[in-house]
Formats: sequence, C-alpha cells, structure tokens
Amino acid sequence: MSEAATARAARATIGNSEFDRDTAVTRREPGVYDIDLSGGWAIVNAVNGGYLLAVLGRALGDALPHSDPFTISAHYLTASQPGPAVVRTDVVRTGRTLSTGQASLFQYDHEGREVERIRVLASFGDLDSLPDDVRTSATPPALPPIDRCFGAGDGPAPVSGSSAIADRLMLKLDPATLGWALGSPSGKGEMRGWFGLADGRDADPLSLLLTVDALPPTAFELGLSGWVPTVELTVHVRSRPAPGPLRVSITTRNLAGGFLEEDAEVWDGADRLVAQSRQLARVRLG
Amino acid sequence: MSEAATARAARATIGNSEFDRDTAVTRREPGVYDIDLSGGWAIVNAVNGGYLLAVLGRALGDALPHSDPFTISAHYLTASQPGPAVVRTDVVRTGRTLSTGQASLFQYDHEGREVERIRVLASFGDLDSLPDDVRTSATPPALPPIDRCFGAGDGPAPVSGSSAIADRLMLKLDPATLGWALGSPSGKGEMRGWFGLADGRDADPLSLLLTVDALPPTAFELGLSGWVPTVELTVHVRSRPAPGPLRVSITTRNLAGGFLEEDAEVWDGADRLVAQSRQLARVRLG
Repeated sequence: MSEAATARAARATIGNSEFDRDTAVTRREPGVYDIDLSGGWAIVNAVNGGYLLAVLGRALGDALPHSDPFTISAHYLTASQPGPAVVRTDVVRTGRTLSTGQASLFQYDHEGREVERIRVLASFGDLDSLPDDVRTSATPPALPPIDRCFGAGDGPAPVSGSSAIADRLMLKLDPATLGWALGSPSGKGEMRGWFGLADGRDADPLSLLLTVDALPPTAFELGLSGWVPTVELTVHVRSRPAPGPLRVSITTRNLAGGFLEEDAEVWDGADRLVAQSRQLARVRLG
Repeated sequence: MSEAATARAARATIGNSEFDRDTAVTRREPGVYDIDLSGGWAIVNAVNGGYLLAVLGRALGDALPHSDPFTISAHYLTASQPGPAVVRTDVVRTGRTLSTGQASLFQYDHEGREVERIRVLASFGDLDSLPDDVRTSATPPALPPIDRCFGAGDGPAPVSGSSAIADRLMLKLDPATLGWALGSPSGKGEMRGWFGLADGRDADPLSLLLTVDALPPTAFELGLSGWVPTVELTVHVRSRPAPGPLRVSITTRNLAGGFLEEDAEVWDGADRLVAQSRQLARVRLG
C-alpha cells in the first residue's frame, strides 16, 4: 500500500469509496448500463477479473429485484481494457427469495463494433433474510498476524508484478506462501493473506467478488510464471461480511493438462465463511 | 441395481446405451434441439439435475465447434418434468482451443407457453488435445472395495428414496456415509461411493455431468431430510475418464443460512481426477 493509499486509509465508507466510484454503472435504458472501466484496478495490462465481476454484479443488483449476489458464474471471453464499456442485462427469472439474471460486458473495437468481454449467469437474493443457523465444519485459515505478513513494496519480500491495483488494496500475504517472490516457490498450490480496501472501505457482498480474485496466482507457488488467465469463475456469497480485514485462502489441488482450479475461501472478523469461489484457469507449463 | 439392470450390465457402449438414448437431442433448426426427457432418470418426482445437465451438454457439444465440456455452469430455475422439452443454444464465442456457449431448456405449461427450466453457460474444448502434464496434490477418496459398499435394495442398509434412476445406475455407497439410511447420520457432510451406469456403458465427459449429481445429498448425513434443490451447479471436466467404475466423493463444509455447498470429485480407475464440481443448494433446516 503506497503512502498515498495509507493517507486515505480508514476514510472511505460503503457507497463512498474508490471501489464504489469505479464500479458505478449508469443506466442508459432499462437493463443497459454504461461504465468507464478504471485503469486503477489493472494488473500489469489486464483489468482485474474480480473488479469486472463486481461491475457486472453491480448492474445485476440494479436490474434484479434482489440486490445480493448469492451465486454468480462468469466466463471470461476476451481481455478487457480500461475505458468505456456497456453492460447488457437480462432478467431470467424473478422469485420471492431468489432472482436469476444474466449480464454481458462489451467494449468497442477499432471499428466501433461491440466485442463481448465477459458473460455471467447469477442468482441474487437478500442475505439479511437468511436464518442465522450455522453448522459449518470449515475452519478459518491459519494466518500470521497482519503485521507479520507482507504487501507490495514491503521488504524483505517485495511482491513482484505489483501494479495499479496494489495501490487500491490492503493485501498482506502470509510469508509461508511468498516463496515465489523470493525465487523459491514452496511447490504447494496455496496462497493466503489478509485483504482490505486501501481507502478503508469495509467489505460488502459486491466487494467480495473482487476479493476472491485479488491474490497472486497459486501457480506462482507451484513454480510457474506468467499470466494465468481465468476461463470461468464462480463465486458463492454466503454471508454479509463483518467490518474489518478479511482472511483469504486460495488452494489448488489439481494442475493437469495446462489447466488448474483455484478454490478461494473468504473469512470475516467474526470467523464466518462469507464467500467461496472456484475458478478454472489456464497455465503455461514451464 | 435391479435384476433387470444386472441382466443388462456390461452390454452397452458409449453411443449405444440408455444414457445416450435418453440424452439424445434432435436438431429442429440450427441451435434448437428437441428432446423427450425420460422419466427413467427421475428421483422421486423430479428429473435428476445431472441428467438435465448432460442433455444441455449434448446440445452444446453439437452447436459448438468443440465437443468436450471443460466448464459448465447451470442455474436451475423451475423443476423439470419427464416429457417433451426444447433446448435453445447460443454460440457466445468460438476460439481455437475453447468455445463458449449458452443453452436453456424449456418445457411447456398448460397453455403451451414455454417455461424455462434451466440455463447454462459453458466453455467447451478438446480433452484429447491437452498435454499429459499432471502435477496434482489431490488424492483419491478412501473407499472400501465395491463389494463392501451398498446400493439401492442391498441389505443391511437399504438406501431409502430410491426411485427410477436407481435402476440406471451402478451406485454403491461407502457404509461410512450411510448412517442416515440406518437412522444414525454421522453429522459429517460427506457422501462417497462407486459409480457406473447399470447397462455397463463406460464413462465419458458427458456422463460425468450426471455422475457429479447422482449421489444422495450430503445433507442426509448432516441429519437433515427432505429435498435439497440445487440453485447452481458448476462442473469442471479435467480429463477423459478411463473405462470402468468411478469413485465419487462429495463434501459439504459450510451449511449456513439455509444453504450449503456440495463439492464433488470424480476419480477414474487410472487414479486421475477426471471431474470437479461445486453446487449451491437449499436445505430445510430441521
């Protein structure tokens, strides 16, 4: 987190933050939304896939009668660029407790033709209407205290490949999953860390869509390098997150045939599993 | 497996089996397919969700330039009934190694209006074109030998709720996950067993879409009863399965707010993880 970001820390609120401004969509007509994709959430040259998912979630939350994403599946088609985009939504079914919708994000090619970047299918509901009953056997990831973890620019383990998005995130990685940054990957498909937004905005169901795809690829700890493009990403939001930093654990168990899965868990300060995700991604086998 | 099914065992082949006949779609026009959903794959009164997914996968494999489902996400909208249905597909993007498509299955209401049952978004490829490189840390589920596991009708642990689909499956459950059938659920969100098709047809990528949703709900072992309707199911097919019985392991870690996830792994006889799936389902909290 840069000094500038630090200076902004703990100021922003849900609805008034970098994340809210950069995911805000403008309704052009019913079901159609304009947005200017911010370069501030780019990793190297690509717009972060979790940021894109949050933009589509924002549009669907407006188009559907329910506002919380319960399950959202995204297929990534072509690489998005910072700049103007249009989101087209389609209400598939509305129900009392769940509504299902579809959305696509398009950008324009040199001839001004729309090119589809990402398409999602999602079911939305109202997290606050769910019973409190919890019977989970999952346990939070074992993470060192936040001040014992490392972020972009922190020594002695500067995280390489940091880019614009690093200034917008409070991302502190478990040293146990930072071997790759020191040239000695662990060989285990694990990535763990503390996550927050740099300007201090607390998490909500929409920002969780960003959180699940914000850590470095587990492939780095498997000794692979280079881009790991997401083919498909599905997120289940299971509970409204409590204020404060989140703990994120990402695991890869099966790397085969040039593809791998990344399973993410997000835990809040109340030790609740607030989101689960799985993505299928391609890797370059070194 | 009934005696009739046993008599059919080991006769059918891929392309000539109950599963192939009951998932066959007839092209009405480009991208539109007719099918008569078979009551033979019903559980109690509902058509099995995995069977429906295989039908949609069959249609997309015809509509797209690639034939193997790599990742397919389904949102279940309304309960399907045995009988006529139409599948409408849409080619989203075609690429050299992956193509993405969308499909919806409709049935007709009393006024003859189309009602959407299920919508899927999927990316297809060619499993045989993938490199052999495997670096997996996942291990096959520990299962007793098939003759030490129990199927529908087997004593001393007759599996309740068996119905039409039971005659079409060779499903033998690990006694360690059958406590629910004896009135003493383990309290663990686990279900494991051996899986095959009763007529002896070997597994292929399409039948894997059925396999991941064919075991009893993990909710039964959590002490819950009743229907556990699927909201969303995503399947990743990671490798073409070897001939012979498959091992299926299903795990639920987080039951909260009336929803749970079911993570399924399918392993073939060559100890390869051939499919992974996750679904979000609703439960009745007892």
